[in-house]
Order: sequence, then structure tokens, then C-alpha cells
Amino acid sequence: MPKLMEEEVFMAFATYATIVLLKMLLMAPITAYFRFSRGAFANEEDVAMKSPEASKKMLRSHPDVERVRRCHQNDLESVVPFVLVGLLYALTGPELATALLHFRLFAGSRLVHSVAYLGALPQPSRALSWMLGLLVTFSMAYRVLGHAMVL
Amino acid sequence: MPKLMEEEVFMAFATYATIVLLKMLLMAPITAYFRFSRGAFANEEDVAMKSPEASKKMLRSHPDVERVRRCHQNDLESVVPFVLVGLLYALTGPELATALLHFRLFAGSRLVHSVAYLGALPQPSRALSWMLGLLVTFSMAYRVLGHAMVL
Amino acid sequence: MPKLMEEEVFMAFATYATIVLLKMLLMAPITAYFRFSRGAFANEEDVAMKSPEASKKMLRSHPDVERVRRCHQNDLESVVPFVLVGLLYALTGPELATALLHFRLFAGSRLVHSVAYLGALPQPSRALSWMLGLLVTFSMAYRVLGHAMVL
Repeated sequence: MPKLMEEEVFMAFATYATIVLLKMLLMAPITAYFRFSRGAFANEEDVAMKSPEASKKMLRSHPDVERVRRCHQNDLESVVPFVLVGLLYALTGPELATALLHFRLFAGSRLVHSVAYLGALPQPSRALSWMLGLLVTFSMAYRVLGHAMVL
Repeated sequence: MPKLMEEEVFMAFATYATIVLLKMLLMAPITAYFRFSRGAFANEEDVAMKSPEASKKMLRSHPDVERVRRCHQNDLESVVPFVLVGLLYALTGPELATALLHFRLFAGSRLVHSVAYLGALPQPSRALSWMLGLLVTFSMAYRVLGHAMVL
Repeated sequence: MPKLMEEEVFMAFATYATIVLLKMLLMAPITAYFRFSRGAFANEEDVAMKSPEASKKMLRSHPDVERVRRCHQNDLESVVPFVLVGLLYALTGPELATALLHFRLFAGSRLVHSVAYLGALPQPSRALSWMLGLLVTFSMAYRVLGHAMVL
């Protein structure tokens, strides 16, 4: 069966899709790290081992935790559509060089976006990297709709 | 390779999946528009160009921004499962007419949902459009499980 | 066309992907149930049928609703990457027994995770089930990258 996985464009898609999904998955452990280091939890059972007063204090939000969560949310909103549109795009049989350009630009833009978000770098670093990722996805969607428009 | 993209049912899926994903991606610029027009931001670096007092006032939540964000979140929770289940559904080889009925109903229901949410239309417009989208996804999942049940 | 759906590994993937996506979709009606039973809504139009004073009281957050929403969010962050990486993994042609082990472990871990989250079971039940699901996805991503690395 795995004919798809012998096509170079599809293999390139699989590589970059997995990389950006792994980057997105990494946000969860980073959130956990900030929850523990900042002492800011969301569930009572997460602080049950502390004394009642200490646990009450730890059921709070913390700016650092909220920042990671916003970054994670932006990944969900950007990376998942990229992978879904990218899958259809890879099936339209684009040139390998064109496809690689799309995938590399997106992966690079999301890396910059995460660093800019978590490091609170001055704008417009985060805004531009986010927009670049969006444009890559739009470009792939444009090709999919041009190739397979059945309404 | 692109045999899948020569199948009419799969092309119909690709068309509607891309359309609803584009609709979902559109929510991010709309959020940005409301953040700027309402002056309600989430990150300190986003308001760094203002004076300290002005920037402090703009680090707040605003009902209009929160409404778009809830609409975006509902898209994530509804559109992404539709595309994933729909991909498997398209691979089970359904009739084109049946598949188109599913895809059209879903795309229509999400369009109504977004208009009802952003326009704060009276209920049950939003509730019914949300439920219709859910039922379409359930119907496709039912066929997938009936076609390919390997536990 | 539906050659993919005649491959046993892909059918197993389709089965488990649909099951965990259905479980995720179920969180939305559960949220709705808690919103109605606890009287905690997010939109003015959702409480428009009540008297002005009653409706004002019902525009609030409630711990039970927030708990379901956090559980739903964790599903989005965990189940969607599993399905996307799992799709690519299934296309690499793994042994059926190995693939089934991955899919079953993930589905089981998410079931335990949801019960632990909604039931507020003592930790580390929720943390361990979440980590197991993450490890399964990492293991599948490892195989995808080993099989199809085109950078």
C-alpha cells in the first residue's frame, strides 16, 4: 500500500507536518513546567498534596503560564489548518521545489513565532511570523481549490 | 501519484474541507481587527509603542474580542473533527450525491453558525446550526465505523 | 479508489481515529449540559428568554463548566495531533500488531484521562494518562521521521 510514502512530495509533507506537530505538542510540557515553577494550577486535585492554605494560593493564573497557553492556542489555530490543507496540497502533485518552499517557510515562520511569543520579543516579530504562516496556508489552499473544485 | 485527486468524491471533500478551513482561518484576522478597533490586547509587547498609562489601559479583555474568540474556538472544536472524519469518510467510497449532501450541509451550517455568533442573533439560530454540523459529522463517523471496524 | 480502506492497518487507524474524535466531540454536549444545569452562560443571547435580573446572574463562569472546557481543550491539544501523526504513521506500513498497540494505548489513555478530569480523581491519574497518550504520539512521529525524512 504505502505508495503515498514513496512519493517525494508526500514524504516532504510528512516530514514537515510531523516537525510542526511535535513543536506544537512541546507546548504542553512547557505549560506544565511553568505551572510548577510559578506555582499556578487550575485544578484542585493538582494541589491536593499541599496544606489547605498553600493549595488555595496555588489555584491561580500566572502571566507566564497564560503566555505559553496563548502561544499553544495560536499553534492549534495555525498548525492544524496547515497540516490539513498541506495534506490536500501534497495530493495535487506540486513540484517538489515549490512544495518544499511552502513547507520550509511555514516551519521557519512557526519557529520564529514561538520564540517571539515565549520570549516576548518586540513586535512586529510575532505578527509578521504569524502572517507568513497564514500566507503559506492560503497559497496551498489556492492551489487545492484550483485543482479540485467540485461544489 | 495523485490518484486520490482524480476521484470525484475526494475532490469534493478537498473543496469543502478547504472552504471550511479557510473560514476558520479568517477568524484570526477578525480577532486582530477587534483587538485594534476596541483597544484590547493580551500581550505587553503588543502595546509597547503607546505611553505607559495608555498601554496599561489596553491590556484588557473586551466583550467583542471574547465573542470572536469563542466563535473561533467553536470552529476548532467542530471544523477540525469534520475534516478528519470527512477524510476517512471520503475514502470509504460513498455515492457522490450522498457525500455532497454531507459536505454542503456542514459548510452551510458553519456559515450560519459564524453569522449567528458574530451577529449575536437570537437563539436558537446558533444552537441549531451547531447541532446540524455535529449531526453531519456523526453521520460520516457512522459510515466509517460501519465500513472499517478493526478493533 | 478506496484501496487505503482495504488495508488492515489503515482500517484500524480509521476505527480508532473515529472513536477518539467522537469522544472529543462528546465534550461539547457535556459542556452544554453543565451550562444549563449550573446556569452559567457566556453569551447574552443565550439567556435572552429570562428576566433581565435573572439573565444577568446567569452570565457567569462556573467551576464545573470550566472543568469540562479544560478537558475539551486538552482533547484538542492531544487527540488532533494523534490523528494527524497517526495518519502518516499508518501510511508507513507498520506491522498490524504494533499499530494496534499504539492505537489501543492511546484510546485507553484518553478514556482514563477524561474520566480522571471530569471526576476530579486524585493525581497522578490524569497526569499519567496524559503522558501515555503523548508518548504514543511521539513513538509514531519517530517512525514517520525515520521512514520519510525529506528536508
